[in-house]
Amino acid sequence: MYVKELFWGPEGMEEKRYYFDWAASAPYIETSPSSRVPYGNPSSLHSEGKAAKAALEDARNRCAAVLGVPPATLYFTSGGTESNAIALFSNLMRKGQGRSIASRAEHSSVREAMETLERMGKPTGTITVDSAGKVTAENLEKALNKYGDVRFASVMSVNNETGAVTDIASIRDVIRKHSSPSVHLHCDLVQAAGKIPLDIEKWELDSASLSAHKIGGPKGIGLLYLRRPRSDIDIFYTGGGQEKGIRGGTENIEGASVFAACLEKHSGSQAVPANYEKAEPRWSKLIASLAAMERCTIIPKERTVAGESFSPYILQAAFKGIPGEVMARALDDLGFAVSTGSACSSSSPERPVLAAMGIKEDLRIEGIRISQGYSTTDEEIEYFLNAVLEVLKFL
Amino acid sequence: MYVKELFWGPEGMEEKRYYFDWAASAPYIETSPSSRVPYGNPSSLHSEGKAAKAALEDARNRCAAVLGVPPATLYFTSGGTESNAIALFSNLMRKGQGRSIASRAEHSSVREAMETLERMGKPTGTITVDSAGKVTAENLEKALNKYGDVRFASVMSVNNETGAVTDIASIRDVIRKHSSPSVHLHCDLVQAAGKIPLDIEKWELDSASLSAHKIGGPKGIGLLYLRRPRSDIDIFYTGGGQEKGIRGGTENIEGASVFAACLEKHSGSQAVPANYEKAEPRWSKLIASLAAMERCTIIPKERTVAGESFSPYILQAAFKGIPGEVMARALDDLGFAVSTGSACSSSSPERPVLAAMGIKEDLRIEGIRISQGYSTTDEEIEYFLNAVLEVLKFL
Repeated sequence: MYVKELFWGPEGMEEKRYYFDWAASAPYIETSPSSRVPYGNPSSLHSEGKAAKAALEDARNRCAAVLGVPPATLYFTSGGTESNAIALFSNLMRKGQGRSIASRAEHSSVREAMETLERMGKPTGTITVDSAGKVTAENLEKALNKYGDVRFASVMSVNNETGAVTDIASIRDVIRKHSSPSVHLHCDLVQAAGKIPLDIEKWELDSASLSAHKIGGPKGIGLLYLRRPRSDIDIFYTGGGQEKGIRGGTENIEGASVFAACLEKHSGSQAVPANYEKAEPRWSKLIASLAAMERCTIIPKERTVAGESFSPYILQAAFKGIPGEVMARALDDLGFAVSTGSACSSSSPERPVLAAMGIKEDLRIEGIRISQGYSTTDEEIEYFLNAVLEVLKFL
Repeated sequence: MYVKELFWGPEGMEEKRYYFDWAASAPYIETSPSSRVPYGNPSSLHSEGKAAKAALEDARNRCAAVLGVPPATLYFTSGGTESNAIALFSNLMRKGQGRSIASRAEHSSVREAMETLERMGKPTGTITVDSAGKVTAENLEKALNKYGDVRFASVMSVNNETGAVTDIASIRDVIRKHSSPSVHLHCDLVQAAGKIPLDIEKWELDSASLSAHKIGGPKGIGLLYLRRPRSDIDIFYTGGGQEKGIRGGTENIEGASVFAACLEKHSGSQAVPANYEKAEPRWSKLIASLAAMERCTIIPKERTVAGESFSPYILQAAFKGIPGEVMARALDDLGFAVSTGSACSSSSPERPVLAAMGIKEDLRIEGIRISQGYSTTDEEIEYFLNAVLEVLKFL
């Protein structure tokens, strides 16, 4: 179709890659998993075990310091998916009635867990999202009133398809107003950590999920935040009783230690605004330039800026007449990595999150997700825009 | 009590450590997590995603080659605990009636999962173990006859407290004879992989669990073997649908890659017998020397050799009048790491596995677990025996 050589010229520049899929997985931060991580089992009582336990607790303390929460509220898991599952499956064991609801834009790990609850005979429900993919105070209020028996609500912070940011403080306000008995508020922070300012304590989250590999850490390590102690939550499966009975299995100390280093590097109270300030104008430029292209539709249409109620790290856009999958492949051929939807649902063309936002089918099919990170440059945005124009010539 | 200096002399040898808790976690094999592991998300369709996927499949193929099974039967998980949980929780979703049973010597991750099944209203049962901690064909037969409705049986290969080896081939024979309808045979291979010869296909295991950190790999990565395809098993929670819908969450490629390297190094069909040949006489010497000590009881008493129906890597022994915890601490002070029971239950003094074997309470309290690995030396055994004698002088 298009001719790669025309774009990159004869210089062999084809080898260079431009990565715009940070929301799927970030390039590794140069923090080698320290070879000094002790090999003992943290549950063992001998010196090797104690050294391992100390390394694990050091990692926990460092994560807690960055996130501004007590170390005792953090539990290491195998990732965001498992953190979400532990929080949601507590509803399987809870005594008494009560409904679990989740926004219609949640990550597939939450969606699947809700379906499992439903199959196990637990009442569930949904919270409508707006055209950007976020939950408004009004929509949550409507859901609470409609069901009348809600005990658990899962509302993600940053939508992983559009970057829409739900105002969690306002969500908490609604719950505070309604709660009697109290509603457990779970928040998927996977796309928020290291990207937008978090205030887990101020938002009074009851539980939250984080993943290391979205912020430059290794895959296979995540965090679950639980405001209340173990005695206050009904854990579905405790395994060997590790992590105070919240999450079984020998603890991934190496992963925990690198996760802590990554959080310190890019997710602290100073790093986040500093990165944000650079990311925002870069993203606004991308949005404006794409919006100016005749065949491009920004999703949602109302989005004209990078920030405000969006994360300046994620953008969804559609190109008229070009299925997202074709666009992504064409860009990939030119050296640019973008995705269609979240990586976790890349094999499914249904795009349920976009459907929940009321995006019409043709736009859903044409949508691609572009996402940047802390090391993305203005120059890369230029190259990317050129690549899009190049593809549009031939497709 | 005892005088450390008397044992180690004035040379400052106290710093040297002797590790006899390989069953809790093995020292890392010198296989650095290759920095070349691609950072992409294996679910992404672009080049970075494809490279990640290729690395993951390469790891799977290598594991499959060592284990002698088709790559498509292996699924990466976060460890042995999760592998056991996925297999056991398939019983939550299975249509129709049917009981799940497990040996009374299973690891706590299996025991906890059985309790969860029970709490969720699924019928469960137990298989009695003999005085060594293994399941005999007769005991399985009794359990199958007693319940009459068994559909799932969990029988571990190597007992993690005593090293007793269950003859899985005979277990399979009993199930084959009884099965109508078929009984799913799940086998926890965590303490067996890399230690005794495995024949997953010959044993016709329906599912099996392995863990990397027990054979020198990192914590946080495990394998689940499933003989039949996804369509034949009812998975409780599929998360983002990764690993063909068996195990959700972005795949831990780095861990998978190091796991493969560790399996290749010490768990192949040549390495296992070669290591075994060295481990067995070393362990027999340890057993004979300990048994010759007046205050020492080998658990079970009948065990006089390292191998045969035991793994020559694990030994349980009790010292009259010395609680296991005190013995372990005293040895730790002298530089030797041993444990009381499995690491996963080190905080619980109940020792349910020893109780299930019919071990009397005083011996249960006095029991310690000693475990060796591929790099343990005859000299270390000598030192260990001297350390035990030294402790016995003062305690």
